[in-house]
Amino acid sequence: MARTPAARSSRRWYTASTTDTTTSSDVVVAVDANGADLGPAEVAAGAALAAAQGARVLLFGPASEIAPESLPDGVELIDAPVSIAKSADPARAARATPDASIVQAARAVAEGRAQALVCAGATGAALAAGLFNIKRARGIHRPALALPLPIPGPAGGRTVTLLDVGANAQARPEHLVQFAFMGAALAQAVLGVTRPRVALLSNGEEDSRGSLLVLEAAVQLRERLSEEDPAARAREDRSPAVDGPSVNGLVMEFIGNVEGGDVTGGAADVIVTDGLTGNIALKLIEGVSQTILGSIRAAAESSPRAKLGGLLLRPTLRAFRDEIDPEAQGGAYLLGLRRLGVVPHGRFTRQGFAQAILRAERGAREDVVGTTHAALERAGALRRAPGGTSPSAEDASLRGNDF
Amino acid sequence: MARTPAARSSRRWYTASTTDTTTSSDVVVAVDANGADLGPAEVAAGAALAAAQGARVLLFGPASEIAPESLPDGVELIDAPVSIAKSADPARAARATPDASIVQAARAVAEGRAQALVCAGATGAALAAGLFNIKRARGIHRPALALPLPIPGPAGGRTVTLLDVGANAQARPEHLVQFAFMGAALAQAVLGVTRPRVALLSNGEEDSRGSLLVLEAAVQLRERLSEEDPAARAREDRSPAVDGPSVNGLVMEFIGNVEGGDVTGGAADVIVTDGLTGNIALKLIEGVSQTILGSIRAAAESSPRAKLGGLLLRPTLRAFRDEIDPEAQGGAYLLGLRRLGVVPHGRFTRQGFAQAILRAERGAREDVVGTTHAALERAGALRRAPGGTSPSAEDASLRGNDF
Repeated sequence: MARTPAARSSRRWYTASTTDTTTSSDVVVAVDANGADLGPAEVAAGAALAAAQGARVLLFGPASEIAPESLPDGVELIDAPVSIAKSADPARAARATPDASIVQAARAVAEGRAQALVCAGATGAALAAGLFNIKRARGIHRPALALPLPIPGPAGGRTVTLLDVGANAQARPEHLVQFAFMGAALAQAVLGVTRPRVALLSNGEEDSRGSLLVLEAAVQLRERLSEEDPAARAREDRSPAVDGPSVNGLVMEFIGNVEGGDVTGGAADVIVTDGLTGNIALKLIEGVSQTILGSIRAAAESSPRAKLGGLLLRPTLRAFRDEIDPEAQGGAYLLGLRRLGVVPHGRFTRQGFAQAILRAERGAREDVVGTTHAALERAGALRRAPGGTSPSAEDASLRGNDF
Repeated sequence: MARTPAARSSRRWYTASTTDTTTSSDVVVAVDANGADLGPAEVAAGAALAAAQGARVLLFGPASEIAPESLPDGVELIDAPVSIAKSADPARAARATPDASIVQAARAVAEGRAQALVCAGATGAALAAGLFNIKRARGIHRPALALPLPIPGPAGGRTVTLLDVGANAQARPEHLVQFAFMGAALAQAVLGVTRPRVALLSNGEEDSRGSLLVLEAAVQLRERLSEEDPAARAREDRSPAVDGPSVNGLVMEFIGNVEGGDVTGGAADVIVTDGLTGNIALKLIEGVSQTILGSIRAAAESSPRAKLGGLLLRPTLRAFRDEIDPEAQGGAYLLGLRRLGVVPHGRFTRQGFAQAILRAERGAREDVVGTTHAALERAGALRRAPGGTSPSAEDASLRGNDF
């Protein structure tokens, strides 16, 4: 495989990531190769990188654009040239196009040929294909997109998990409550945070601050967590109904509201908000970072003195840029389906797609879905009514989402 | 007056600001000196700086902490030692404490002794004192906080006006419609934008993206603006009811949705959102900027080479930091009352307070309130029912706000 400049410059963080030990698990990741800005071959190259780290991949994409002989052991190509990545109505397209690559990938997960789904770029199509084929997990109101954000810092950086970053533009309080447990389970299982501090994003730290949605979610979350306190748990443990595998080790701390400035400030490990605000927050962070780094680059061209300063600082600034590089995280986790999904950004390079596949593989191995579900069940935060398994229920849920 | 280091370092942008010509208008600005983190003397020093630029100030604060003999001509001190800036329930405090400095300042505006209000730090108290004394403008649903944000750029930077940044955590579509006209009138009158491009902040650029609030606000805004089109205006101009001074020159363009990344990208001059999302966005911008600049500072200490580079770049980086300095803008405009308010941040120094006073003075002179109101009237976006002049109506509105 030819090594591009991008591949070279990214090698450092890539091999230094938490997934750099070679794994050989039973987990297979189904990957949709359509939807990447750089084309299916770039996703295939990412799959090859991930396979070199021990991942096993079922790759759905156009064989005419991906040379099968270039793929290593561990990557199996299924010819799937039809793409719905650019569809204006992804929900309808996902249902009407059973041979679309993303639908075939989701079906592979639904049928047990793969244990996790990776779809580049098309959030709406991924959500629709996932809901129709993999289905919502029992008792889950709405799937959510959870993004671990790298926060730079003198101590080497931390990660804050933000959700929902765009699956649901409209949310109800009980959705935010479920998102809180989903995010905490993810932070614990994947990022190794022992006791995640979970907060609601609001316009002030005081409990009285927030929209009706935020205020009501806080009330419900406190109720759910008080049902989880040691005394309550002792009472419950005597009841065989909640005994056994559904009781798991998730311990989270709800710290109330945090403000926008706290997202990069380290006050919380998991920050919960609706998909409209979360998406705005995510894109603001990316936009402001780019604007500032661009301005500093321009400033470092403004005089001979500044130019020399910029030259001397360049390696340090490059390391900093790598530290906040979204590709290093591999994209957002799609939580709330019966299997795990990961949605990398469409503009990623092969390194980002490799990270996405490795993260999906690790998330499936760590049983993020099972952990999340057990935590929700223990807190009584699952939906009471039988949850969305019929096609018509899925349809209704999907119409409610604003992709 | 002793010159502090802060005063020295900020002098450059201060004298280069758009308000640096000496004015001597009939406008008097009422200023609450309580609420600043650095204390009333810092606000008084800011008033003195503003007076040196031609502003006339009625300063309400504790005479024991402000030496009257230090104040120049143009600043009149009214001894008002009682502060409600730290009150947990500002609405109740504003009503129950008629001698509070902020209430006295608002009353001076209501009684015509001053034409604009400046209150440092306490947004909730400013809103409450304003609503109870100055009152909402006729037909206005809710006051809003509008913040002109400096966006750095190679061409010398631009300004995008974001509103609401925190007056209303809960908003209805008709509120966002009014905010759009308020923001456009501000951008035109104060920032000199001839034809402001106005957008709604959403989770995607397509018209189909957004919460129910955003989607409905877009529909209503398009309706209001179509009533403003040339043909409609020609019809209306034949009716004496809308003729005369209420028809003014506000021309705005509604460009639909923008994403979080577009806030710093220059796609719009005015970006409209609810107070929860706007407050989160504002604090994210400040937090991300500080985190990145802090990380670069730390990086420039990491090696002798980087240290030298940082030293050479320092003047350039300082100019950049000044460019995005929130103090240079003077704080947020409080729009929707019968007179203009400006709310500087509590952590500002004298330079920020001076800017706030000069901005309030200029806004009153440019008749931002009148321009806004005429634009709303012409677009049919004013509330039909007689609007909130009785104390009980003000109370109801105030309870609806989440400070």
